[in-house]
Amino acid sequence: MDNSRPVILITNDDGITAPGICALVEAVKDLGQVIVVAPDSPQSGMGHAITIGTPLRLDKVDEFEGIESWQCSGTPVDCVKLARDKILHRKPDICLSGINHGANHSINLIYSGTMSAAMEAAIEGIPSAGFSLLDFSFHADFTVAQKVVRSIANRMLNEKMPEHLLLNVNIPKLTEADFKGMKLCRQAYAKWEENFDHRVDPRGKAYYWMVGRFVNMDEGTDTDVQALEEGYASVVPVKFDLTDHQIKNWMHETWKELV
Amino acid sequence: MDNSRPVILITNDDGITAPGICALVEAVKDLGQVIVVAPDSPQSGMGHAITIGTPLRLDKVDEFEGIESWQCSGTPVDCVKLARDKILHRKPDICLSGINHGANHSINLIYSGTMSAAMEAAIEGIPSAGFSLLDFSFHADFTVAQKVVRSIANRMLNEKMPEHLLLNVNIPKLTEADFKGMKLCRQAYAKWEENFDHRVDPRGKAYYWMVGRFVNMDEGTDTDVQALEEGYASVVPVKFDLTDHQIKNWMHETWKELV
Repeated sequence: MDNSRPVILITNDDGITAPGICALVEAVKDLGQVIVVAPDSPQSGMGHAITIGTPLRLDKVDEFEGIESWQCSGTPVDCVKLARDKILHRKPDICLSGINHGANHSINLIYSGTMSAAMEAAIEGIPSAGFSLLDFSFHADFTVAQKVVRSIANRMLNEKMPEHLLLNVNIPKLTEADFKGMKLCRQAYAKWEENFDHRVDPRGKAYYWMVGRFVNMDEGTDTDVQALEEGYASVVPVKFDLTDHQIKNWMHETWKELV
Repeated sequence: MDNSRPVILITNDDGITAPGICALVEAVKDLGQVIVVAPDSPQSGMGHAITIGTPLRLDKVDEFEGIESWQCSGTPVDCVKLARDKILHRKPDICLSGINHGANHSINLIYSGTMSAAMEAAIEGIPSAGFSLLDFSFHADFTVAQKVVRSIANRMLNEKMPEHLLLNVNIPKLTEADFKGMKLCRQAYAKWEENFDHRVDPRGKAYYWMVGRFVNMDEGTDTDVQALEEGYASVVPVKFDLTDHQIKNWMHETWKELV
Protein backbone atom coordinates (compact mmCIF):
# COMPACT_ATOMS: atom_id res chain seq x y z
CA MET A 1 0.00 0.00 0.00
CA ASP A 2 1.17 3.50 -0.96
CA ASN A 3 1.39 5.25 2.40
CA SER A 4 1.89 8.73 0.99
CA ARG A 5 -1.78 9.16 0.08
CA PRO A 6 -4.78 8.92 2.41
CA VAL A 7 -6.65 5.63 2.24
CA ILE A 8 -10.38 5.93 1.54
CA LEU A 9 -12.41 2.80 2.26
CA ILE A 10 -15.64 2.67 0.26
CA THR A 11 -18.58 0.35 0.85
CA ASN A 12 -22.37 0.32 0.47
CA ASP A 13 -25.45 -1.83 1.01
CA ASP A 14 -26.88 -1.97 -2.51
CA GLY A 15 -24.04 -4.26 -3.60
CA ILE A 16 -20.84 -3.71 -5.55
CA THR A 17 -22.59 -3.51 -8.95
CA ALA A 18 -24.99 -0.69 -7.95
CA PRO A 19 -24.59 2.59 -9.84
CA GLY A 20 -24.45 4.50 -6.53
CA ILE A 21 -21.14 3.02 -5.39
CA CYS A 22 -19.67 3.69 -8.83
CA ALA A 23 -20.75 7.35 -8.51
CA LEU A 24 -19.09 7.48 -5.06
CA VAL A 25 -15.81 6.04 -6.38
CA GLU A 26 -15.81 8.50 -9.28
CA ALA A 27 -16.44 11.43 -6.94
CA VAL A 28 -13.40 10.83 -4.71
CA LYS A 29 -10.91 8.67 -6.61
CA ASP A 30 -8.41 11.53 -7.08
CA LEU A 31 -8.52 12.50 -3.38
CA GLY A 32 -6.59 9.48 -2.13
CA GLN A 33 -6.05 5.77 -2.53
CA VAL A 34 -9.54 4.32 -2.87
CA ILE A 35 -10.24 0.71 -1.86
CA VAL A 36 -13.70 -0.77 -2.35
CA VAL A 37 -15.00 -3.63 -0.20
CA ALA A 38 -18.71 -4.11 -0.78
CA PRO A 39 -21.39 -6.82 -0.57
CA ASP A 40 -21.72 -9.18 -3.54
CA SER A 41 -25.52 -8.81 -3.41
CA PRO A 42 -28.08 -6.21 -2.25
CA GLN A 43 -28.15 -5.84 1.55
CA SER A 44 -30.73 -3.08 2.03
CA GLY A 45 -32.43 -3.06 5.42
CA MET A 46 -29.72 -5.19 6.99
CA GLY A 47 -29.10 -2.65 9.75
CA HIS A 48 -26.10 -3.47 11.91
CA ALA A 49 -26.31 -7.21 11.20
CA ILE A 50 -23.10 -9.26 11.30
CA THR A 51 -22.49 -12.81 10.14
CA ILE A 52 -21.73 -15.15 13.03
CA GLY A 53 -23.10 -18.58 12.17
CA THR A 54 -21.74 -18.96 8.65
CA PRO A 55 -18.31 -18.25 7.14
CA LEU A 56 -17.69 -15.40 4.73
CA ARG A 57 -16.28 -15.26 1.21
CA LEU A 58 -14.09 -12.39 0.04
CA ASP A 59 -13.04 -12.13 -3.60
CA LYS A 60 -10.95 -9.61 -5.49
CA VAL A 61 -12.90 -8.26 -8.46
CA ASP A 62 -12.26 -5.91 -11.33
CA GLU A 63 -15.30 -3.68 -10.94
CA PHE A 64 -13.79 -0.18 -11.10
CA GLU A 65 -10.93 0.69 -13.48
CA GLY A 66 -7.67 1.22 -11.62
CA ILE A 67 -9.31 0.80 -8.18
CA GLU A 68 -8.62 -2.17 -5.89
CA SER A 69 -11.99 -3.72 -5.21
CA TRP A 70 -13.34 -6.73 -3.35
CA GLN A 71 -16.75 -8.31 -2.99
CA CYS A 72 -17.87 -10.00 0.19
CA SER A 73 -20.68 -12.48 0.82
CA GLY A 74 -21.62 -10.81 4.12
CA THR A 75 -23.39 -7.70 5.35
CA PRO A 76 -22.14 -4.11 4.97
CA VAL A 77 -20.78 -4.26 8.56
CA ASP A 78 -18.94 -7.50 7.73
CA CYS A 79 -17.33 -5.69 4.77
CA VAL A 80 -15.85 -3.00 7.01
CA LYS A 81 -14.57 -5.56 9.53
CA LEU A 82 -13.02 -7.75 6.82
CA ALA A 83 -11.51 -4.78 4.98
CA ARG A 84 -9.61 -3.68 8.04
CA ASP A 85 -8.39 -7.12 9.10
CA LYS A 86 -7.70 -8.88 5.80
CA ILE A 87 -7.17 -6.18 3.15
CA LEU A 88 -5.93 -2.93 4.67
CA HIS A 89 -4.16 -4.36 7.75
CA ARG A 90 -4.61 -0.85 9.21
CA LYS A 91 -7.31 1.76 9.70
CA PRO A 92 -8.24 3.65 6.53
CA ASP A 93 -8.09 7.46 6.93
CA ILE A 94 -11.81 7.79 6.24
CA CYS A 95 -14.70 5.51 5.33
CA LEU A 96 -17.45 6.52 2.90
CA SER A 97 -20.59 4.44 2.37
CA GLY A 98 -23.11 4.67 -0.44
CA ILE A 99 -24.26 6.41 -2.47
CA ASN A 100 -27.46 4.69 -1.38
CA HIS A 101 -30.36 4.42 -3.79
CA GLY A 102 -33.12 5.85 -1.56
CA ALA A 103 -33.42 7.87 1.66
CA ASN A 104 -31.77 7.05 4.98
CA HIS A 105 -32.93 10.11 6.88
CA SER A 106 -34.81 10.19 10.22
CA ILE A 107 -35.34 6.79 11.89
CA ASN A 108 -34.45 5.02 8.62
CA LEU A 109 -30.80 5.26 9.56
CA ILE A 110 -31.33 2.51 12.16
CA TYR A 111 -32.42 0.01 9.48
CA SER A 112 -29.85 1.12 6.93
CA GLY A 113 -26.95 -1.12 5.94
CA THR A 114 -25.29 1.92 4.34
CA MET A 115 -25.28 3.86 7.60
CA SER A 116 -24.44 0.80 9.72
CA ALA A 117 -21.28 0.21 7.65
CA ALA A 118 -20.23 3.83 8.26
CA MET A 119 -21.12 3.45 11.95
CA GLU A 120 -18.97 0.33 12.23
CA ALA A 121 -16.00 2.35 10.93
CA ALA A 122 -16.77 5.24 13.30
CA ILE A 123 -16.87 2.82 16.26
CA GLU A 124 -13.34 1.79 15.22
CA GLY A 125 -12.23 5.44 15.30
CA ILE A 126 -12.37 6.07 11.54
CA PRO A 127 -14.11 9.35 10.56
CA SER A 128 -16.98 8.20 8.37
CA ALA A 129 -19.98 9.29 6.35
CA GLY A 130 -22.90 7.59 4.67
CA PHE A 131 -24.53 9.18 1.61
CA SER A 132 -28.02 8.55 0.29
CA LEU A 133 -29.83 10.01 -2.70
CA LEU A 134 -33.61 10.31 -2.55
CA ASP A 135 -34.03 8.45 -5.83
CA PHE A 136 -34.53 4.68 -6.04
CA SER A 137 -34.03 4.57 -9.80
CA PHE A 138 -31.23 2.50 -11.25
CA HIS A 139 -30.74 5.42 -13.67
CA ALA A 140 -30.68 8.09 -10.94
CA ASP A 141 -28.66 11.25 -11.64
CA PHE A 142 -25.85 11.41 -9.06
CA THR A 143 -24.45 14.82 -10.14
CA VAL A 144 -25.60 16.78 -7.06
CA ALA A 145 -24.83 13.89 -4.74
CA GLN A 146 -21.26 13.68 -6.08
CA LYS A 147 -20.76 17.40 -5.42
CA VAL A 148 -21.89 16.91 -1.81
CA VAL A 149 -19.69 13.82 -1.38
CA ARG A 150 -16.63 15.62 -2.73
CA SER A 151 -17.10 18.65 -0.52
CA ILE A 152 -17.48 16.55 2.64
CA ALA A 153 -14.70 14.08 1.79
CA ASN A 154 -12.29 16.93 1.09
CA ARG A 155 -12.98 18.44 4.45
CA MET A 156 -12.73 15.08 6.25
CA LEU A 157 -9.32 14.48 4.66
CA ASN A 158 -7.87 17.97 5.08
CA GLU A 159 -9.06 19.12 8.51
CA LYS A 160 -8.80 17.55 11.95
CA MET A 161 -11.91 15.46 12.57
CA PRO A 162 -13.33 14.01 15.80
CA GLU A 163 -12.13 10.39 16.04
CA HIS A 164 -15.65 8.99 16.00
CA LEU A 165 -17.16 11.39 13.45
CA LEU A 166 -20.13 9.80 11.71
CA LEU A 167 -22.28 11.79 9.28
CA ASN A 168 -25.63 10.78 7.85
CA VAL A 169 -25.93 12.72 4.60
CA ASN A 170 -29.10 12.64 2.50
CA ILE A 171 -29.34 14.39 -0.84
CA PRO A 172 -32.61 15.53 -2.44
CA LYS A 173 -33.55 14.48 -5.97
CA LEU A 174 -32.90 17.86 -7.56
CA THR A 175 -30.97 19.39 -10.44
CA GLU A 176 -27.89 21.47 -9.66
CA ALA A 177 -29.93 24.61 -10.41
CA ASP A 178 -32.59 23.79 -7.80
CA PHE A 179 -30.27 22.38 -5.13
CA LYS A 180 -29.95 24.76 -2.14
CA GLY A 181 -26.77 23.43 -0.49
CA MET A 182 -26.16 21.52 2.73
CA LYS A 183 -27.82 21.96 6.11
CA LEU A 184 -26.72 20.69 9.52
CA CYS A 185 -29.72 18.98 11.15
CA ARG A 186 -30.95 16.65 13.84
CA GLN A 187 -32.63 13.30 13.18
CA ALA A 188 -36.41 13.70 12.72
CA TYR A 189 -38.91 11.55 14.58
CA ALA A 190 -40.33 10.27 11.32
CA LYS A 191 -40.69 6.67 10.27
CA TRP A 192 -42.39 4.06 8.15
CA GLU A 193 -45.78 2.88 9.35
CA GLU A 194 -45.65 -0.69 8.16
CA ASN A 195 -48.29 -3.21 7.58
CA PHE A 196 -48.18 -6.53 5.82
CA ASP A 197 -49.79 -7.56 2.58
CA HIS A 198 -51.33 -11.01 3.14
CA ARG A 199 -51.13 -13.45 0.23
CA VAL A 200 -51.63 -17.16 -0.29
CA ASP A 201 -49.07 -19.36 -2.03
CA PRO A 202 -49.97 -22.05 -4.63
CA ARG A 203 -50.05 -24.62 -1.82
CA GLY A 204 -52.64 -22.61 0.15
CA LYS A 205 -50.26 -21.34 2.82
CA ALA A 206 -50.18 -17.68 3.89
CA TYR A 207 -47.21 -15.37 3.38
CA TYR A 208 -46.69 -11.66 4.03
CA TRP A 209 -44.94 -8.79 2.23
CA MET A 210 -43.90 -5.74 4.23
CA VAL A 211 -45.47 -2.56 2.87
CA GLY A 212 -45.75 0.88 4.41
CA ARG A 213 -46.06 4.62 4.20
CA PHE A 214 -43.70 7.24 5.54
CA VAL A 215 -45.04 9.44 8.35
CA ASN A 216 -43.34 12.52 9.81
CA MET A 217 -44.43 13.10 13.41
CA ASP A 218 -41.79 15.75 14.05
CA GLU A 219 -42.85 19.38 13.75
CA GLY A 220 -39.34 20.75 14.31
CA THR A 221 -37.81 22.96 11.63
CA ASP A 222 -34.26 21.75 12.36
CA THR A 223 -34.72 18.14 11.20
CA ASP A 224 -33.25 16.26 8.26
CA VAL A 225 -36.71 15.60 6.80
CA GLN A 226 -37.50 19.31 6.86
CA ALA A 227 -34.17 20.31 5.26
CA LEU A 228 -34.71 17.82 2.43
CA GLU A 229 -38.22 19.14 1.82
CA GLU A 230 -36.74 22.63 1.50
CA GLY A 231 -34.26 21.46 -1.16
CA TYR A 232 -31.16 21.06 1.04
CA ALA A 233 -28.93 18.05 1.58
CA SER A 234 -29.27 17.09 5.27
CA VAL A 235 -26.15 16.44 7.35
CA VAL A 236 -26.79 14.75 10.71
CA PRO A 237 -23.88 13.88 13.04
CA VAL A 238 -24.64 10.46 14.52
CA LYS A 239 -23.49 8.79 17.73
CA PHE A 240 -23.29 5.16 18.80
CA ASP A 241 -23.51 5.74 22.55
CA LEU A 242 -27.25 5.16 22.80
CA THR A 243 -27.57 5.94 26.52
CA ASP A 244 -30.68 8.05 27.09
CA HIS A 245 -29.42 10.39 29.80
CA GLN A 246 -32.78 12.14 30.15
CA ILE A 247 -34.59 8.91 31.02
CA LYS A 248 -31.57 7.85 33.10
CA ASN A 249 -32.02 10.99 35.22
CA TRP A 250 -35.76 10.38 35.50
CA MET A 251 -35.13 6.79 36.62
CA HIS A 252 -32.51 7.96 39.08
CA GLU A 253 -35.19 10.08 40.74
CA THR A 254 -38.17 7.76 40.52
CA TRP A 255 -36.76 4.19 40.52
CA LYS A 256 -34.76 4.72 43.71
CA GLU A 257 -35.35 1.42 45.44
CA LEU A 258 -34.48 -0.47 42.28
CA VAL A 259 -31.18 1.10 41.43
CA MET B 1 -58.39 -10.57 23.09
CA ASP B 2 -59.18 -10.12 26.77
CA ASN B 3 -58.92 -6.34 27.21
CA SER B 4 -59.11 -6.37 31.01
CA ARG B 5 -55.49 -7.53 31.40
CA PRO B 6 -52.37 -5.80 30.09
CA VAL B 7 -50.94 -7.33 26.93
CA ILE B 8 -47.29 -8.34 27.14
CA LEU B 9 -45.60 -9.01 23.79
CA ILE B 10 -42.61 -11.32 24.11
CA THR B 11 -39.94 -11.94 21.50
CA ASN B 12 -36.22 -12.78 21.28
CA ASP B 13 -33.41 -13.39 18.81
CA ASP B 14 -32.30 -16.88 19.83
CA GLY B 15 -35.50 -18.33 18.35
CA ILE B 16 -38.76 -19.56 19.83
CA THR B 17 -37.30 -22.87 21.08
CA ALA B 18 -34.48 -21.24 23.12
CA PRO B 19 -34.63 -21.83 26.90
CA GLY B 20 -34.24 -18.07 27.48
CA ILE B 21 -37.61 -17.12 26.00
CA CYS B 22 -39.26 -19.89 27.98
CA ALA B 23 -37.71 -18.45 31.16
CA LEU B 24 -39.05 -15.00 30.20
CA VAL B 25 -42.58 -16.32 29.62
CA GLU B 26 -42.52 -18.17 32.96
CA ALA B 27 -41.33 -15.04 34.77
CA VAL B 28 -44.23 -12.81 33.69
CA LYS B 29 -47.12 -15.02 32.58
CA ASP B 30 -49.24 -14.16 35.60
CA LEU B 31 -48.72 -10.38 35.18
CA GLY B 32 -50.88 -10.05 32.09
CA GLN B 33 -51.92 -11.63 28.83
CA VAL B 34 -48.69 -12.89 27.30
CA ILE B 35 -48.36 -13.30 23.53
CA VAL B 36 -45.17 -14.69 22.03
CA VAL B 37 -44.06 -13.85 18.48
CA ALA B 38 -40.50 -15.01 17.92
CA PRO B 39 -38.17 -16.09 15.10
CA ASP B 40 -38.40 -19.71 13.94
CA SER B 41 -34.57 -19.93 13.90
CA PRO B 42 -31.62 -18.27 15.70
CA GLN B 43 -31.17 -14.61 14.68
CA SER B 44 -28.25 -13.52 16.85
CA GLY B 45 -26.26 -10.58 15.51
CA MET B 46 -29.08 -9.51 13.19
CA GLY B 47 -29.14 -5.98 14.60
CA HIS B 48 -32.03 -3.91 13.32
CA ALA B 49 -32.35 -5.89 10.08
CA ILE B 50 -35.75 -6.12 8.42
CA THR B 51 -36.92 -8.36 5.59
CA ILE B 52 -37.70 -6.39 2.45
CA GLY B 53 -36.85 -8.57 -0.55
CA THR B 54 -38.54 -11.79 0.46
CA PRO B 55 -41.97 -12.51 1.98
CA LEU B 56 -42.43 -13.69 5.55
CA ARG B 57 -44.11 -16.73 7.06
CA LEU B 58 -46.03 -16.55 10.33
CA ASP B 59 -47.33 -19.72 11.96
CA LYS B 60 -49.25 -20.35 15.17
CA VAL B 61 -47.41 -22.86 17.33
CA ASP B 62 -47.99 -24.64 20.59
CA GLU B 63 -44.68 -23.86 22.26
CA PHE B 64 -45.77 -22.62 25.70
CA GLU B 65 -48.66 -24.17 27.62
CA GLY B 66 -51.66 -21.85 27.73
CA ILE B 67 -49.82 -19.01 25.95
CA GLU B 68 -50.68 -17.83 22.43
CA SER B 69 -47.48 -18.17 20.45
CA TRP B 70 -46.35 -17.64 16.87
CA GLN B 71 -43.15 -18.29 14.99
CA CYS B 72 -41.97 -16.04 12.18
CA SER B 73 -39.45 -16.68 9.41
CA GLY B 74 -38.04 -13.13 9.68
CA THR B 75 -35.79 -11.14 11.97
CA PRO B 76 -36.61 -10.08 15.55
CA VAL B 77 -37.67 -6.64 14.25
CA ASP B 78 -39.97 -8.30 11.69
CA CYS B 79 -41.57 -10.24 14.56
CA VAL B 80 -42.52 -7.03 16.39
CA LYS B 81 -43.89 -5.43 13.22
CA LEU B 82 -45.92 -8.51 12.28
CA ALA B 83 -47.19 -9.00 15.83
CA ARG B 84 -48.69 -5.55 15.91
CA ASP B 85 -50.23 -5.60 12.44
CA LYS B 86 -51.40 -9.19 12.05
CA ILE B 87 -51.83 -10.65 15.56
CA LEU B 88 -52.52 -7.97 18.17
CA HIS B 89 -54.16 -5.36 15.87
CA ARG B 90 -53.15 -2.84 18.59
CA LYS B 91 -50.13 -1.82 20.60
CA PRO B 92 -49.26 -4.23 23.41
CA ASP B 93 -48.90 -2.52 26.81
CA ILE B 94 -45.25 -3.50 27.05
CA CYS B 95 -42.76 -5.50 25.01
CA LEU B 96 -40.12 -7.75 26.58
CA SER B 97 -37.32 -9.34 24.57
CA GLY B 98 -35.01 -12.21 25.56
CA ILE B 99 -33.85 -13.62 27.82
CA ASN B 100 -30.80 -13.59 25.55
CA HIS B 101 -28.18 -16.29 25.94
CA GLY B 102 -25.09 -14.06 26.24
CA ALA B 103 -24.26 -10.41 26.93
CA ASN B 104 -25.71 -7.39 25.11
CA HIS B 105 -24.03 -4.71 27.19
CA SER B 106 -21.89 -1.82 25.88
CA ILE B 107 -21.63 -1.50 22.09
CA ASN B 108 -23.01 -5.05 21.69
CA LEU B 109 -26.51 -3.63 21.87
CA ILE B 110 -26.10 -2.25 18.35
CA TYR B 111 -25.56 -5.75 16.88
CA SER B 112 -28.18 -7.40 19.04
CA GLY B 113 -31.40 -8.75 17.57
CA THR B 114 -32.80 -8.97 21.11
CA MET B 115 -32.30 -5.26 21.74
CA SER B 116 -33.33 -4.25 18.21
CA ALA B 117 -36.70 -6.00 18.67
CA ALA B 118 -37.23 -4.04 21.89
CA MET B 119 -36.10 -0.84 20.15
CA GLU B 120 -38.58 -1.42 17.33
CA ALA B 121 -41.37 -1.56 19.93
CA ALA B 122 -40.04 1.56 21.70
CA ILE B 123 -40.00 3.47 18.39
CA GLU B 124 -43.69 2.57 18.12
CA GLY B 125 -44.35 4.05 21.56
CA ILE B 126 -44.45 0.77 23.49
CA PRO B 127 -42.40 0.78 26.74
CA SER B 128 -39.89 -2.01 26.21
CA ALA B 129 -36.97 -3.87 27.70
CA GLY B 130 -34.44 -6.38 26.46
CA PHE B 131 -32.90 -8.88 28.90
CA SER B 132 -29.63 -10.76 28.50
CA LEU B 133 -27.92 -13.26 30.78
CA LEU B 134 -24.12 -13.47 30.68
CA ASP B 135 -24.22 -17.21 30.11
CA PHE B 136 -24.21 -18.79 26.64
CA SER B 137 -25.03 -22.25 27.94
CA PHE B 138 -28.20 -23.99 26.77
CA HIS B 139 -28.53 -25.15 30.38
CA ALA B 140 -28.02 -21.67 31.90
CA ASP B 141 -29.68 -20.97 35.27
CA PHE B 142 -32.22 -18.17 34.73
CA THR B 143 -33.26 -17.83 38.41
CA VAL B 144 -31.62 -14.44 39.03
CA ALA B 145 -32.54 -13.18 35.55
CA GLN B 146 -36.20 -14.05 36.14
CA LYS B 147 -36.19 -12.09 39.40
CA VAL B 148 -34.84 -9.05 37.56
CA VAL B 149 -37.35 -9.45 34.71
CA ARG B 150 -40.26 -9.69 37.12
CA SER B 151 -39.23 -6.64 39.11
CA ILE B 152 -38.85 -4.48 36.00
CA ALA B 153 -41.98 -5.80 34.24
CA ASN B 154 -44.07 -5.17 37.35
CA ARG B 155 -42.91 -1.58 37.48
CA MET B 156 -43.43 -1.06 33.74
CA LEU B 157 -47.00 -2.33 34.06
CA ASN B 158 -47.95 -0.54 37.26
CA GLU B 159 -46.35 2.90 36.99
CA LYS B 160 -46.51 5.58 34.33
CA MET B 161 -43.64 5.05 31.90
CA PRO B 162 -42.15 7.35 29.25
CA GLU B 163 -43.77 6.46 25.91
CA HIS B 164 -40.45 5.50 24.32
CA LEU B 165 -38.89 3.78 27.34
CA LEU B 166 -36.30 1.25 26.25
CA LEU B 167 -34.14 -0.58 28.77
CA ASN B 168 -31.07 -2.67 28.06
CA VAL B 169 -30.83 -5.05 31.01
CA ASN B 170 -27.87 -7.42 31.42
CA ILE B 171 -27.70 -9.95 34.22
CA PRO B 172 -24.47 -11.44 35.59
CA LYS B 173 -23.97 -15.19 35.81
CA LEU B 174 -24.31 -15.42 39.58
CA THR B 175 -26.26 -17.32 42.21
CA GLU B 176 -28.98 -15.50 44.14
CA ALA B 177 -26.64 -15.36 47.14
CA ASP B 178 -23.89 -13.56 45.20
CA PHE B 179 -26.14 -11.26 43.13
CA LYS B 180 -25.91 -7.63 44.30
CA GLY B 181 -29.08 -6.14 42.73
CA MET B 182 -29.64 -3.75 39.84
CA LYS B 183 -27.66 -0.67 38.90
CA LEU B 184 -28.62 2.20 36.60
CA CYS B 185 -25.73 2.73 34.15
CA ARG B 186 -24.58 4.29 30.91
CA GLN B 187 -23.39 2.29 27.89
CA ALA B 188 -19.65 1.53 28.13
CA TYR B 189 -17.28 2.19 25.24
CA ALA B 190 -16.29 -1.45 25.12
CA LYS B 191 -16.48 -3.73 22.11
CA TRP B 192 -15.30 -6.83 20.32
CA GLU B 193 -11.99 -6.52 18.49
CA GLU B 194 -12.65 -8.85 15.61
CA ASN B 195 -10.40 -10.59 13.24
CA PHE B 196 -11.09 -13.38 10.79
CA ASP B 197 -9.90 -16.94 10.86
CA HIS B 198 -8.76 -17.80 7.31
CA ARG B 199 -9.52 -21.36 6.12
CA VAL B 200 -9.52 -23.16 2.81
CA ASP B 201 -12.47 -25.24 1.62
CA PRO B 202 -12.16 -28.70 -0.01
CA ARG B 203 -12.14 -27.01 -3.43
CA GLY B 204 -9.16 -24.80 -2.50
CA LYS B 205 -11.14 -21.57 -2.08
CA ALA B 206 -10.67 -19.30 0.95
CA TYR B 207 -13.35 -18.60 3.55
CA TYR B 208 -13.37 -16.63 6.79
CA TRP B 209 -14.87 -17.08 10.25
CA MET B 210 -15.33 -14.04 12.47
CA VAL B 211 -13.51 -14.40 15.80
CA GLY B 212 -12.67 -11.80 18.40
CA ARG B 213 -11.92 -10.76 21.93
CA PHE B 214 -13.82 -8.30 24.09
CA VAL B 215 -11.99 -5.10 25.03
CA ASN B 216 -13.17 -2.44 27.50
CA MET B 217 -11.71 0.96 26.64
CA ASP B 218 -13.94 2.80 29.11
CA GLU B 219 -12.46 3.66 32.50
CA GLY B 220 -15.72 5.10 33.86
CA THR B 221 -17.19 3.56 37.01
CA ASP B 222 -20.78 4.27 35.91
CA THR B 223 -20.88 1.87 32.94
CA ASP B 224 -22.82 -1.33 32.35
CA VAL B 225 -19.62 -3.35 31.98
CA GLN B 226 -18.37 -2.10 35.35
CA ALA B 227 -21.67 -2.82 37.12
CA LEU B 228 -21.69 -6.39 35.79
CA GLU B 229 -18.12 -6.92 36.94
CA GLU B 230 -19.16 -5.82 40.41
CA GLY B 231 -21.98 -8.39 40.49
CA TYR B 232 -24.91 -6.11 39.60
CA ALA B 233 -27.45 -6.36 36.80
CA SER B 234 -26.91 -3.34 34.56
CA VAL B 235 -29.90 -1.23 33.47
CA VAL B 236 -29.19 1.22 30.62
CA PRO B 237 -31.98 3.44 29.23
CA VAL B 238 -31.52 3.54 25.45
CA LYS B 239 -32.58 6.09 22.83
CA PHE B 240 -33.13 5.86 19.10
CA ASP B 241 -32.53 9.51 18.31
CA LEU B 242 -28.87 9.08 17.35
CA THR B 243 -28.14 12.77 16.71
CA ASP B 244 -24.75 13.64 18.20
CA HIS B 245 -25.47 17.14 19.51
CA GLN B 246 -21.92 17.63 20.73
CA ILE B 247 -20.46 17.10 17.25
CA LYS B 248 -23.40 19.05 15.80
CA ASN B 249 -22.38 22.06 17.92
CA TRP B 250 -18.73 21.63 16.92
CA MET B 251 -19.70 21.51 13.24
CA HIS B 252 -21.93 24.53 13.68
CA GLU B 253 -18.86 26.47 14.83
CA THR B 254 -16.22 25.07 12.48
CA TRP B 255 -18.04 24.03 9.26
CA LYS B 256 -19.66 27.42 8.78
CA GLU B 257 -19.36 27.81 5.04
CA LEU B 258 -20.74 24.32 4.49
CA VAL B 259 -23.88 24.54 6.53
